Amino acid sequence: MIVAMQETATDHQIERVIEHLVRMGFSVHRTTGIRQTILAAVGARVDFDTRTFEVLPGVQEVHRISAPYKLVGRSFRPEGTVIHFSNGLTLGGDQVVVMAGPCSVESRDQLFTVAQVISKAGARVLRGGAFKPRSSPYAFQGLGLEALKLLREAGEQFGMLVISEVMEISQISMMLPYIDIFQVGARNMQNFNLLRELGKIKKPVLLKRGIAATLEELLLSGEYIMAGGNYEVILCERGIRTFETYTRNTMDISAIPIVKKLSHLPMTADPSHGTGRRDKVAPMARASLAAGADALLIEVHHDPDTALSDGAQSLFPDQFAKLMEELRMIAPAVGRKIV
Amino acid sequence: MIVAMQETATDHQIERVIEHLVRMGFSVHRTTGIRQTILAAVGARVDFDTRTFEVLPGVQEVHRISAPYKLVGRSFRPEGTVIHFSNGLTLGGDQVVVMAGPCSVESRDQLFTVAQVISKAGARVLRGGAFKPRSSPYAFQGLGLEALKLLREAGEQFGMLVISEVMEISQISMMLPYIDIFQVGARNMQNFNLLRELGKIKKPVLLKRGIAATLEELLLSGEYIMAGGNYEVILCERGIRTFETYTRNTMDISAIPIVKKLSHLPMTADPSHGTGRRDKVAPMARASLAAGADALLIEVHHDPDTALSDGAQSLFPDQFAKLMEELRMIAPAVGRKIV
Amino acid sequence: MIVAMQETATDHQIERVIEHLVRMGFSVHRTTGIRQTILAAVGARVDFDTRTFEVLPGVQEVHRISAPYKLVGRSFRPEGTVIHFSNGLTLGGDQVVVMAGPCSVESRDQLFTVAQVISKAGARVLRGGAFKPRSSPYAFQGLGLEALKLLREAGEQFGMLVISEVMEISQISMMLPYIDIFQVGARNMQNFNLLRELGKIKKPVLLKRGIAATLEELLLSGEYIMAGGNYEVILCERGIRTFETYTRNTMDISAIPIVKKLSHLPMTADPSHGTGRRDKVAPMARASLAAGADALLIEVHHDPDTALSDGAQSLFPDQFAKLMEELRMIAPAVGRKIV
Amino acid sequence: MIVAMQETATDHQIERVIEHLVRMGFSVHRTTGIRQTILAAVGARVDFDTRTFEVLPGVQEVHRISAPYKLVGRSFRPEGTVIHFSNGLTLGGDQVVVMAGPCSVESRDQLFTVAQVISKAGARVLRGGAFKPRSSPYAFQGLGLEALKLLREAGEQFGMLVISEVMEISQISMMLPYIDIFQVGARNMQNFNLLRELGKIKKPVLLKRGIAATLEELLLSGEYIMAGGNYEVILCERGIRTFETYTRNTMDISAIPIVKKLSHLPMTADPSHGTGRRDKVAPMARASLAAGADALLIEVHHDPDTALSDGAQSLFPDQFAKLMEELRMIAPAVGRKIV
Repeated sequence: MIVAMQETATDHQIERVIEHLVRMGFSVHRTTGIRQTILAAVGARVDFDTRTFEVLPGVQEVHRISAPYKLVGRSFRPEGTVIHFSNGLTLGGDQVVVMAGPCSVESRDQLFTVAQVISKAGARVLRGGAFKPRSSPYAFQGLGLEALKLLREAGEQFGMLVISEVMEISQISMMLPYIDIFQVGARNMQNFNLLRELGKIKKPVLLKRGIAATLEELLLSGEYIMAGGNYEVILCERGIRTFETYTRNTMDISAIPIVKKLSHLPMTADPSHGTGRRDKVAPMARASLAAGADALLIEVHHDPDTALSDGAQSLFPDQFAKLMEELRMIAPAVGRKIV
Repeated sequence: MIVAMQETATDHQIERVIEHLVRMGFSVHRTTGIRQTILAAVGARVDFDTRTFEVLPGVQEVHRISAPYKLVGRSFRPEGTVIHFSNGLTLGGDQVVVMAGPCSVESRDQLFTVAQVISKAGARVLRGGAFKPRSSPYAFQGLGLEALKLLREAGEQFGMLVISEVMEISQISMMLPYIDIFQVGARNMQNFNLLRELGKIKKPVLLKRGIAATLEELLLSGEYIMAGGNYEVILCERGIRTFETYTRNTMDISAIPIVKKLSHLPMTADPSHGTGRRDKVAPMARASLAAGADALLIEVHHDPDTALSDGAQSLFPDQFAKLMEELRMIAPAVGRKIV
Repeated sequence: MIVAMQETATDHQIERVIEHLVRMGFSVHRTTGIRQTILAAVGARVDFDTRTFEVLPGVQEVHRISAPYKLVGRSFRPEGTVIHFSNGLTLGGDQVVVMAGPCSVESRDQLFTVAQVISKAGARVLRGGAFKPRSSPYAFQGLGLEALKLLREAGEQFGMLVISEVMEISQISMMLPYIDIFQVGARNMQNFNLLRELGKIKKPVLLKRGIAATLEELLLSGEYIMAGGNYEVILCERGIRTFETYTRNTMDISAIPIVKKLSHLPMTADPSHGTGRRDKVAPMARASLAAGADALLIEVHHDPDTALSDGAQSLFPDQFAKLMEELRMIAPAVGRKIV
Repeated sequence: MIVAMQETATDHQIERVIEHLVRMGFSVHRTTGIRQTILAAVGARVDFDTRTFEVLPGVQEVHRISAPYKLVGRSFRPEGTVIHFSNGLTLGGDQVVVMAGPCSVESRDQLFTVAQVISKAGARVLRGGAFKPRSSPYAFQGLGLEALKLLREAGEQFGMLVISEVMEISQISMMLPYIDIFQVGARNMQNFNLLRELGKIKKPVLLKRGIAATLEELLLSGEYIMAGGNYEVILCERGIRTFETYTRNTMDISAIPIVKKLSHLPMTADPSHGTGRRDKVAPMARASLAAGADALLIEVHHDPDTALSDGAQSLFPDQFAKLMEELRMIAPAVGRKIV
């Protein structure tokens, strides 16, 4: 931590800040400049709040230097994390993984129809919601356990792994037998109790960035899971909230190369939620791959106009197949392949 | 819902949109202008997604007209909701209620010291965290049940009601015997499972606006609680995330008069979290009152420099007493009083 | 400037950064911590770009310490700037000044009708647009010179100073004989050529914050004017752009106490543009005063429904008179008065 | 325009709104629903402010339906605008054009060194600043006329067109003999006086999106230029301001496909300003191309560490050459080529 004192700070004020730093376990190095005094506090502690010092008398500004996380940082595993699944698929290596499927599991017919077409086009993981977080209490809330069973069955029939969203602690044990990757939605990125429980399981967790979360906060939420012992964390960009209203969210494509630099964890992108509009999904999926994403999540529905949720952002099967072809052309430009 | 067709839309495309609207239960009125056709869809349904229509061929744009909520809207209770507490205190009427206390309950000594000074200065509700949502897994997480018991005891000794934050469903029953108002934090504003459970209890819920939540989303989250049968919902502005980094959040003071117009629910403000800096708490508390807030939440600590959380935004006791005097001077300008 | 090196930085990389700093004229103090090396660079230079160092090999992060401005900083004039006008009015002292009038000057009748009512209610400065920045090329663009003459005449008749917006360098000399305060609109806050010219004149300049400008950028734009020799700069909050769409802008009330702390310049607020809706102007005007504003700009129109611009945010005369009464009640709570 | 009345609106209020609409030249169609009355106002007028109606008594909400622009809309030229330059280069067709060069022209040596390497790697347009908008009055402000002459000479020697930024009306005539494309920077996107003058010239104008501008505002600023008679307008995404601080701006890649849909004008991207960091330029350049950009602007410097401005976001020559190879691999996936 760096504490820059005001030009007018008194010796007494400087001493008081130093004492406070020492009491918290820091070693303090003092630099006296022509204008002001600067204190560099070094130590192993990461759980402090820089604002504590910002409001002390005589302090001009405070900067945290060490990252507030340990396990998710790139230096913890400089070579990068590659997740190996039982069926031989890897995530974080030279393969780019496409996860696809409907927003919600609505029926056996719907799920199997979609699963067949996406599997044929090259998706390797089947996505589908069993529990749906809806902003209106009057909207469709998901099929629950029935959806989980259908996902497992469809995944096995068409040779795909299964990913689905967990919204609450009590759902974890119910989901464990049926799914391969737990997804944490944007609204739960800082549901710390849930994250802590997911740190105790033995399956990968895909953690989506909250719509107002900084990348540092996304990494800190990943730290919650890793701190519990589960090192198979996958991060995901799915759009942030900005002043622009044409799209539901503004997809922050630059988050992909940034997270890849700051962390060793795989970084993925969800252009369906990132844009909220079907006609923007393909351009943003291509852009995500070109920027270095390790995997893509894409919503597909065989009849989006009748979908019970998010039909507007679901691709038609032939749009998905065309997109897969485009992605296969782009992958070599970033040294990747889509198998 | 209004669907504006593109100038180039064909009759076939217009017919298809109309069919879709009718299938969803709307009556459709068609206006053919010199440039384009406009469809007005009227009906009782509120749980639709306008984007479903935005992506249909020939559609230019779609606007929801009816609010997506029913119970929280001002027209449900035009006279406004006033919450009456057992000790005679009212919230939402002509009294402005000040809720104060430490960020976290840290010890008996700390809580009782703070409770005494704020009570003397005029606070009528004691706030204090028992469970703390922390962005770092390595930070202080609260004293739990012990904190709840101390809050109850201090509240009774100094004649104040008690408010504390609930983070998870399993905490509700533990908290019920000890507190008078359940607080839902900004990070849980869209934890819909939690909101649904709080709709079943018989105590008021203070719901804070998420840092990236629109006012419509705040109202929809209030609707979740009311839809369960609990009509004693209190809303709270506590700062939104913007590009400005000088303060932790940008407090949206205009949310206060806006919510008062759109909804019948009491609207309150939390200038401590809204600014994150002690030296900005008093100006923003005064501004909130001047803009029409029904209550204020203010963090106070007798020794903020040693606080285990959020010390930087906690007022010293004498700052709080001075602020109470200023608030008493401002209240009559907005036709209110502080008792 | 503080440069924190990565844990893995080599001696060679550290040396290279130090050389770069020295070449730019800084003295460098090196702190070697248990994790990383930190370089504190001190010197008198303010015109550097911290990103130059952020991208050097081995660098983790860089923080500017000294403010990038000199003249606008509070330390330049710790006692605060008070502007004295020829008619005895002061701005920045214990008086709170209310500036009011129509958005655009539309006609002699309109201007004089409005001027009379606001003057009677207590406004001391008459505002009115002669040149209008309009986002559509097809909208009303202002009456130009004719408007300036009318403003001067009305100001003299009703005993008010005159403020009007300058949009372009060529307008400055045309405006000089007629107005007392030059207003720079939000869209021109970073029109540096214009600011530089305004630094050469001898009349006060009211500079509005851009809708996406940080407070530091606002201060830097003030520095442009002061650097030219014109020290009578007045700053103004008028709303920033956020994700919330209910109001045209989100008024950042906290900017008022922040600017008052960082700078010696008077800080004012424009609740008309800050909200864009007539029914929110009074609450936000009260809030601005309660937060410490030195002056308020308020749009008033005797018949807003027929106004050629911004009628929606203009108060009716009786609303303005009522607001003035409320402001007079609030002023003493912040140690101010409205004369 | 659609005006939705409140459920409680009286007949008198509805009549008053209708009168107001008719007075403004609209035809009004009235729909009486079970809950509320909806008024659809159709007409040819585009220069109205919806807020005028929002604040009328009895009005619930108002939506503009027709776009506020005419000439920039896709329907004005459904086939898309292709700009043909004298040397055979086209912009907006199947070629993707790369514009590159230093941020500022600093010297003859610097410019010719950079021009040679970028030309060899495939750039077809040379960029370089002659007048620099700097947020600090103490920073390097550009070489002016000398820079323009050097740009022309280097462009001719290496077979590239020339683009440079215009900041002020008085610079237009000075620049005309030397440059092929006028660039308007983000800070001047709403400098309407400047835009109007650029509407009168006969050379293409590249207009950058302001950091807080919606896409509609970008299009409206393009309309200012086209309304003056200059139809060769090129739009450009260069990053918007959001809460994320890791990058200088958040590049809104989705703006590319959106503008291509809403408008016939070519849409380009500037990943150098869009990210502000050299290490993020290549991923975002690839992403922009993959999302459908018609041209890219990329800053290159032969010795970025000594650049007088924006060195941190300038690519080294070999990084640029490598990027050009990657772009050539991606282009076919979007049906384009780089010549």
